[in-house]
Order: sequence, then C-alpha cells, then structure tokens
Amino acid sequence: MGNDYYYECPHPVAIPPAKPFIESIKSGIKETLFPDDPFRQFKNQPASRKFILGLQYFVPVLEWAPRYTFEFFKADLIAGITIASLAVPQGISYASLANLPPILGLYSSFVPPLVYAMLGSSKDLAVGTVAVASLLISSMLGKEVNPNENPKLYVQLALTATFFAGVFQAALGFLRLGFIVDFLSHATIVGFMGGAATVVCLQQLKGILGLVRFTHGTDLVSVMRSVFSQAHQWRWESGVLGCCFLFFLILTRYVSKRKPGFFWISAMAPLTSVIVGSVLAYLTHAEQNGVQVIGHLKKGLNPPSVSELAFGSPYLMTAIKTGIITGVIALAEGVAVGRSFAMFKNYHIDGNKEMIAFGMMNIAGSCTSCYLTTGPFSRTAVNFNAGCKTAVSNIVMATAVMITLLFLTPLFHYTPLVVLSSIIIAAMLGLIDYEAAISLWKVDKCDFIVCMSAYFGVVFGSVEIGLVIAVVISLLRMLMSVARPRTFLLGNIPNSMIYRSIDQYPIANNVPGVLILQIDAPVYFANANYLRERISRWIYEEEEKLKSTGGSSLQYVILDLSAVGSIDTSGISMLEEVKKNIDRRDLKLVLANPRSEVIKKLEKSKFMESIGQEWIYLTVGEAVAACNFMLHRSKSSNNPATEKVELDAHDNV
Amino acid sequence: MGNDYYYECPHPVAIPPAKPFIESIKSGIKETLFPDDPFRQFKNQPASRKFILGLQYFVPVLEWAPRYTFEFFKADLIAGITIASLAVPQGISYASLANLPPILGLYSSFVPPLVYAMLGSSKDLAVGTVAVASLLISSMLGKEVNPNENPKLYVQLALTATFFAGVFQAALGFLRLGFIVDFLSHATIVGFMGGAATVVCLQQLKGILGLVRFTHGTDLVSVMRSVFSQAHQWRWESGVLGCCFLFFLILTRYVSKRKPGFFWISAMAPLTSVIVGSVLAYLTHAEQNGVQVIGHLKKGLNPPSVSELAFGSPYLMTAIKTGIITGVIALAEGVAVGRSFAMFKNYHIDGNKEMIAFGMMNIAGSCTSCYLTTGPFSRTAVNFNAGCKTAVSNIVMATAVMITLLFLTPLFHYTPLVVLSSIIIAAMLGLIDYEAAISLWKVDKCDFIVCMSAYFGVVFGSVEIGLVIAVVISLLRMLMSVARPRTFLLGNIPNSMIYRSIDQYPIANNVPGVLILQIDAPVYFANANYLRERISRWIYEEEEKLKSTGGSSLQYVILDLSAVGSIDTSGISMLEEVKKNIDRRDLKLVLANPRSEVIKKLEKSKFMESIGQEWIYLTVGEAVAACNFMLHRSKSSNNPATEKVELDAHDNV
Repeated sequence: MGNDYYYECPHPVAIPPAKPFIESIKSGIKETLFPDDPFRQFKNQPASRKFILGLQYFVPVLEWAPRYTFEFFKADLIAGITIASLAVPQGISYASLANLPPILGLYSSFVPPLVYAMLGSSKDLAVGTVAVASLLISSMLGKEVNPNENPKLYVQLALTATFFAGVFQAALGFLRLGFIVDFLSHATIVGFMGGAATVVCLQQLKGILGLVRFTHGTDLVSVMRSVFSQAHQWRWESGVLGCCFLFFLILTRYVSKRKPGFFWISAMAPLTSVIVGSVLAYLTHAEQNGVQVIGHLKKGLNPPSVSELAFGSPYLMTAIKTGIITGVIALAEGVAVGRSFAMFKNYHIDGNKEMIAFGMMNIAGSCTSCYLTTGPFSRTAVNFNAGCKTAVSNIVMATAVMITLLFLTPLFHYTPLVVLSSIIIAAMLGLIDYEAAISLWKVDKCDFIVCMSAYFGVVFGSVEIGLVIAVVISLLRMLMSVARPRTFLLGNIPNSMIYRSIDQYPIANNVPGVLILQIDAPVYFANANYLRERISRWIYEEEEKLKSTGGSSLQYVILDLSAVGSIDTSGISMLEEVKKNIDRRDLKLVLANPRSEVIKKLEKSKFMESIGQEWIYLTVGEAVAACNFMLHRSKSSNNPATEKVELDAHDNV
Repeated sequence: MGNDYYYECPHPVAIPPAKPFIESIKSGIKETLFPDDPFRQFKNQPASRKFILGLQYFVPVLEWAPRYTFEFFKADLIAGITIASLAVPQGISYASLANLPPILGLYSSFVPPLVYAMLGSSKDLAVGTVAVASLLISSMLGKEVNPNENPKLYVQLALTATFFAGVFQAALGFLRLGFIVDFLSHATIVGFMGGAATVVCLQQLKGILGLVRFTHGTDLVSVMRSVFSQAHQWRWESGVLGCCFLFFLILTRYVSKRKPGFFWISAMAPLTSVIVGSVLAYLTHAEQNGVQVIGHLKKGLNPPSVSELAFGSPYLMTAIKTGIITGVIALAEGVAVGRSFAMFKNYHIDGNKEMIAFGMMNIAGSCTSCYLTTGPFSRTAVNFNAGCKTAVSNIVMATAVMITLLFLTPLFHYTPLVVLSSIIIAAMLGLIDYEAAISLWKVDKCDFIVCMSAYFGVVFGSVEIGLVIAVVISLLRMLMSVARPRTFLLGNIPNSMIYRSIDQYPIANNVPGVLILQIDAPVYFANANYLRERISRWIYEEEEKLKSTGGSSLQYVILDLSAVGSIDTSGISMLEEVKKNIDRRDLKLVLANPRSEVIKKLEKSKFMESIGQEWIYLTVGEAVAACNFMLHRSKSSNNPATEKVELDAHDNV
C-alpha cells in the first residue's frame, strides 16, 4: 500500500455526539459510586421479588440460611470452637493493649460476631478485636485521658470512639464511598502493619520484663529509654516465663506452617499457654514472686452501655477523631481480609455492603460494652483452615465466649500477664512482612519508599504520623505522575505500520523530516506548562541534532494523543500555544488518534478549526503517510527529479 | 495477510534493560525540576565563558545592555512615561485599598521596577502593585490588627509580609519549584480574579458613597449590610463625581479598545482624572462639602525600612501566612503575564528565573518602604502597546515616579478619594472575564464548576476561602480521573487492522469470541480495586449479552495497555487477580502493547511468567489475529469441517 492510498482515504477520526450534561453526570456518578453495578439482579423483576432481593441484599443471612444444611453445621461447629479458643486469650490481651479492662475483650467477641453473622457477606471472616486498632485507641485516647487515673472516663471515650467508628463505617458504606479505603495502598498497609506490629511488640516489653511503670509514648526512643532507665526493676521470673511461652507459640506456628493439616496446633496454642500459665502461677504462687496476673474478672454477659456513650464530654472531638481513624484502619484490614478469602473460594464480596455490616456491628458493640472489632487476619485464617462453611462459625464462637463469660471467668484470675504478652508478640511477628517489603524494592522503588516511610513513621513517630506520611507520599506520587507525564519519541518498527517509543524499541527508525511525540497522561492544568516546555525542547533538540548530522530538515511534528484520556481548558490553551510555536518555526502540527473526550473538546474550543480537520489522523501510521506524501509532493514541485525519493518513502512507510 | 503470518511472526514486545536506580532518580529529578533544560547553553564551553554565561543567566541586564541602542531608548522612553502616568494614580489607589498610607503606593513604583530591570527576563513587564494582592493584605492583616487604631504596626506587618513573600518567591525559583504555581489552573484564576475584582468594586462603594465607617468584611453580605444600614449618610456630591469619572474612564477604555492606535487615551485617562478631579476639588472647596481628599503626602524618596520589619512581633505568623499567599498569587499573575507577552514577541521566559527576580524585587522593596509588587496585566498591556523594547521602560517609569516623589506630591493634596475609587473600579471591570467563563461552560463543565466555586467562594466567603475551594476541587478532579479511569470496549474499524473504542467509532465491529478492553490511565493503588470490579463487570455483561443473543461463547479477553503509562505493585496484584478470575471462567487473558514501565514491572514481579510471554502482543491487531488463529485451530481439531470458518476469519482480521 503506497502513500497515495492512505492520504486519499484515511480512516476519519470520529467526533462522538455530545452527551447531555445531566446524562454524563449520571454516568459519572454511576462509575464513581457503583462500579460493580450491585443492582443488576434487580432488573426486570416484579416488585415483590425486588423487595425480597432487597432484604436479602442488606441482610445476607436471609439469602443463605434457607440453604443451610447439617453438613455445613458440622464444619462450622469445629471451626467456631477453634477460633473461640483463640478469641478468648487474644480478646483479653488486646483489651489490655488498649488499656481497657480485660473483660471488654471478651464482651467484644460476643455481640459483634452475632451481628456480623446476620449482615456480613463473607463466609470466612471471623470477627474480633485487633492489635493495631487497640494500640491506636490507647495512644490517641491516652494522650487526653490517663487510663489509670480516670478509668471510667477512658472506657466511656473508647466506647464513644467505637460508636463513631461504626457510624463512619456504615456511612461510608451507605454513601458508597468505600473507595476511600483504596487510598491506603498495598505498600502503605505493608509498612504500616509492620510498624504497628513492631510498636506493639515493644509495648510488650512491659509485660515480659514485669515493669510496673511504663512510658505512654509508643515510639522506639521513648520505649527504649523507659526500659533501660528501669533496668534494676527487671524481673527475671517474668522474663523467663515469657520467653518460654513465646518459644512454644512460635514453635507451634512453625509446625502448623510446615504441615497445614496441623493448623489446630497453632490455633490451640494460645489457650494452652493460658491454661498452663494459669496453673503454673496458681501452684507456684507466682503472684507473690513478681509475676503479675489478670486478677478478678466479672462474671456475666455484656452489660448495656448506651448510657456510657459520652456525647457531652469535653473530649468528644478526640473520641470522634479516634473513631474515624481506627474505623478506617479497621475497615481496610477487614475488607482486604474478606476479599482475599473470598477470592480463594471464588465468591464475590461487595466492599460497601461489608462496610455497612462492620459499621452496624460496631454501633451495636458500642451499646453493649464492646470496643472496636473488625475481621482480623490471623483469626480469619484459622477459621478458613478449620474448614468453616458460613458465618455460623461466628455464632458458634460467640456462644463459646458466652459460656466463658457466664461460667469460666474466675478461671482466668491467675493468668499471668506475661503469657498474654507472649501471645501478642507471637501474633505480631507474623504481621512484619519483610518478604513483601523486599519484593516491593525489587518491583517498584517508589512503593518501597512509601512502605518504609510508613514503617519508620510508625516506629519513630507515632501510628498516626506514619499513616499520614505514607498516604501523603502515595498521593504525591500519583499527583506527580499527572504533573510530570512522560513524553516519548516514536519510531517506525521495521516492516510494519507500527510506531513505538524508540526508548523501548531501539530497532524503531526515525522518519526523516517528521518528529513523532507521544504524550503519556491526560493533559491538565498541572502538566500543561510542563508539556509545553517539554515539547518545545523535543523540537529544539531534534533540530539541533539534524543540524549537526546534516539530515533533512524538520517539516512535521506529529503528536500521538492515544494515551491522552482527557483534557481540560488549560490543556487546550497549551495545544494552542504549541501550535503557535510550531507554526512560527515553519513546521506543521499533526494530531494522531485523539480520543473521544479530547476530540469533543477540541471541536468545541474551535482548536479543530484552527488546526484543520485534515491534519488529524486516526493512527500515527496514517499521519506519517500523509506527511510523507506532502513532503514529497512539495519536493517534487520544487525539484522535478524526485522519483527515487518517492520510491524510498514507500519502503519506509 | 492471513492469521498464519501474524501468529507465527508477530513483532515481539521489547523489555527495555533496567536502568540503575540512581540514574532513574537523576532523570526523574531533571524532568521534575529542569524540564526546560536551562543549562544547555553551558555545555561544552570553557570555564571563563561559563562564568560570564552564568552571570548573564542570573542578571539578564548584562546580556542585553551591551546591545542596547538609541532607537530602543526612544521607544522605551515613550512607553515609560505612559506607564508612569498610570502608575502614580494606581499606586495611590491600591495603597488605600490595602489600608496603607497612599505614599507607599508611590514608593512601590520606584525601587522594585529598578530591581526588576536588572534581574527580570521579560522585555514587556511593567512592575507595580496590584489590586488583588492589596485586597488580600488588607483582609488578612486587617483581621489581626486594625489599620486605623494601630497604623504603625499595620504598616510594619505589611512590610514584613512583603519581605516573606519575596523570600518565598525567590526560594521557589532557586529550588526550581515554580511548577507549584501551575496548580492554579486557568479556570481557578479566571474565577478567582473575577471574584476578587467584584469584591474590590464593592469595597469602592465606601469611596463613591462618601461613607466614613465601613465593614472590615470583604464578602457581599457584609458590604451590602454596611452600605444599606448607612443609607442616610450617602453623599450625593461624592456619588455624582464618582459616576462622572467612572463614565469617562470606561469611555476612554472603550475608544482605545476599538482603535488600538489610541491606546494612550486610556493610559492617560487616570492621570487626567486625577488632575481634573484635584483642580475641581480645589476650586469648589469640595473638602468642606463632604468629598474626602487624599490630604498631605510626604515629599522625598523611599525611607529605608529594614528596622520596620517586625520579626519579633506576636503577629509574625500572620505576616508569614499573608506573605506566602499573596506571594503565590502575585507570582501566578506576574509569571502568566510575562509569558503571554513573551509569546507575542516570540522569546522565551524561564518561569523559575522570573520568580527569583520577583523575589529579589520584593525583598529589596520591603527594605525601602515598598509593599508587594508584581507585573500587573493592565500596566504591562499599556507598556506593550506603547511599544516598549526592553526593561528600560521600567527605569523610565521609576525615574518619573522619583521626580513625582521629590517635587510633585503636594499637588495630590486635593485629589478626591472618589476619583481613586473610580480608577480602581474601571480597572477591575476588565478583570471580570465573563466571556472566559462562558467558554469554560461550553468546553469543559468541570472547569466551569471550578471557576464558579472560586468566584462565589471569594464573593460570599473570603479571598482565601475561594482560593482553597477552587484548588481543592481542581486537585480532586485530577485525583478522581486517576481513581476512576475509563475502560473502553474496542472493536475493529472495517477494512483495517485498527481497533478503536466502539463508543467513539460506532462503525467498529466486535470480534466474535474475543473481548477487547482498553484501560485509560496508569494503574495505581487508587484505581486497582475499581479496575478489577470494572473488568469483571465487562466480562459478565459480555457473557450475558452473548447468552441472550446466542452468539459464539467468549474465549479470550484482550487488555489493551497502550494508555497505561505506569503501574505500581497494587496494580500488578490487580492484574494477577484479574487473571485468576479469567482463568476460573475458562477464558484466556491476553495483553496488548504494554509500555516500557509496565513490561519491566510485569517481568520483575513474575507476572509475565505466569501469563506466558506468548500471550503478550505488540498491537491489539496482532493479539486478535493470534486469538483467531488459536480459536479456529481448536475448533478444527474438534470439528474437521471448518475450512469456511477459517476463511471468514481472514476477512475479519
């Protein structure tokens, strides 16, 4: 195919009809808030069916309960008992991490799992408290109210924070704003979780070393100062006990990891440790030998706590702030965990619906003496390995915890705190995912920087500082990718009509007399000035190069807009200025493949008139063919003996 | 060309060699901070030449002064005198707008233009104070210190703010961070300037109506309340005088606009108004009839004011904040004005170098009793029309102002304030660019919304509120374009190997058995979840459609990555999940045209191994050809009688 063919009948660039403003807003809202089209099953259904579907949509238990079988129940029973054995010691441990009374940890494993079983759509998620949120509560509320001096107010604020976390979570879900959680990138979460796990482990030095006083700071420096300034008060009894249990817990985890069939070994290990530790402490009167124990735990189910919600407190703003931050962190963990396990079993989870379930469960929890709960990774993994089939495993766990609350709390009187510390440390070590960090370094240096800044921000600053730094860096990176888009010089891949970046394909050849540039991002105000500078530099450099090598002079500049998804008015002004600049150098601007958003705006802004529709082509190949055609036609008119050049051009195209 | 040809020897996708980390950081910094490559003229020069070039780079006067001719001087003299006649009344007016003593306005037209003439690289920019920055100073500082009760402190703070504005501007320039100004989009500036002009006009009601007391608020509501609650104190003498002068000024502007040769009519009009107004006031003893006049102006040049800079003041933070905000606004106006006129005359302006010049000029100004100056549009346009050749016109203007300061200040004693108000209003009316707003509405609704929110934010809130709202909306829009990228269904343009969006090209045909999707943005954490949902919805909808129409079932999903400039680790996880999802549906994922950043990361993350390099093609066309080849081969092996189908496929490709 020669030039003539292409120049005479190229494929025209289509200008799609303008959409009405309202319609484009509607489709924008749909894509933004309902990308997964949750209501497609409602289409073309009678009203009664719609009502049932709607009910099932918001209360998924109605959907799966009728299909529940005894086979399922057997599996769920085993899984539920397994996770309950993990839930009881973990609940107590994490509550102490949050500086809350240990019994609140047990309460929190009773009501919220029941609510989630009704409303949640994951079949594998096991509900419970988590270490990072507990730490955040203690560090954020602890700044305002001392939990030792004013325990009642502190508990009230923790419950209020939980209430607001629930309201915020449910609101995000109802408003379909769940995508806010997406702004916590994978790298941020890896770094943040690792940092938080490190900080939590450091906090456990208090329990392991049997210290009574301890810093309220969470950063490495304060903790180390606190630990070493009290070196004379370290209790070796406590330390030895702690290390033994830690070794036992890590060993069981190692065994379970090597042989997945023995998952129950590591699942049962915490409860075993608690039992062994309590018996040991009881027999050896360890309490009098400097090993601190839990002490008295009240018997009975969750007392109502609506009246405890401190809406009138002067610390209300702190509670709201704590609620929102812990709520988002808890959501990020819970939704990610739910999604990962759903992927294994090949079912779909609606993130926004999950948020409503989490929110409802925390609102209900805050009214029944529970603090913030979500879907912890460790417990969910155990649930999954234990073969759970539905959310009934959560109901079984809640029942087991209820029995514990009603009858077994006195048994925990002699449980040494150091055992709880070991349980927390063993759980946390799994969260420091150094392998993920290494793979970030290998694949994407920028993500690695985000991850490390989150980690060091948490370890040396505070949990909030680390989080804010990481989110800001991730956003800046995204903004910078728009503000400084790449531009590429394109060349022709030999024996084809294909044009690709010369950087990536060194075999690609320049087209004499034509400069082909590709812009790699939407053109917005933030990059319009940069692109203008950069394009004029490309032209300048090309002209310099041609001058020094004595090549044929530049005649055409082709801008490949394939990757320019949209443009704003600053971008259009930029194109106008580029055109003026190119015209002044006696060159000709040619556009290739403007996309629908771009061509629409070029038309409306009259830029298309000024450039001329005949200079806009569907592909770079067609644009080059047209340029070559013009180039040789003009040469022929100046110099009649160009038959040879014309033939060369054929080969080039 | 049949399928065989393409499937057997497609053009391979190149994986560019990994760049060393340091080198990629270096080139990143270069593109971010030095996109215009300012040092290219230094390359391959001896050291002495480099020194001279460097000196000329930072002090442009050294570069052009040796080539200065008498011809140039004649032109600059005329232009300089013209802008001086504008500078004197405008300087006095804007100083009163900033609640500063009028004489400071004259001082500010003396020292800063001299500094700019040495350091600036624009040949057309005329330096002076501007209305918006003056208004910002009075509204931001006025909140903290009442200019009537404590005039000395107020002036000190204004000078300190000017100093910090200068330091900030120079720092931005030295650190090559000038692109921060780019974040004020064209739409933001149109709305913001229009709003500020409206607010400034409203403020002039005080002068026009001859009111003594007036609100400190700048918003429409406070001003209207203040005006109408004092209706009984309106002075008709003042009002009539104001309206007459306003009419005269607008008329001269209209004449100059129709006949550009008469630019001097509108340039001279303000000075004429001042002279006529002063003579009238002197003759009619207007002062005693309720027409306020300027009063005594001190004779003499700028007194030094280094000792006035209030670094120890408790209001230092306010001064710094005011300095930074007014500094950025002034930069945005000055750099944009300089660039626009440079474009007319076809020379280049380095934005960062200009920022250093503006910064130096304001630092020098703050030490010599000048407040914030920049390059106002109106004065620069007059300078340009008057035929200025170089920055010497600024020197001429400064000399004229110096003569005024030394000998002529007593003449302004009787100048009525209402004349100054008319001058300000006439200048401001030109800033309300409703035509630009209409064209924004036509071309880009989102930019229009940004523009309007800036306008109404300024008019009903405050100058800062309007600015913050507009910048936040613009940034959100950019973030949303990354968070919710478009995905398109591609089809084959008849009689070609070209694949384009079916939305834009309704003539494009589906390829049976193959779903071709195009992703329209870099894949980042913020959009990875969305894209996963959206791709699975495309597949689901396509399968539903095929089921209902009974078409041949889906076999291949081709992702066209042409517009995906980069990807992060969250994006790679997304692709892995999409692949799992597609595998589970017994489909095959094929990638087309991954770009260099993307293919590098796909290789490092082992995703390329998992998908298989043979499923990555250079173009969509080649990918479709390969899919068709496989499709028919598998059909042939199931059903030997497919010769016809194979032939059909040839036509399709």
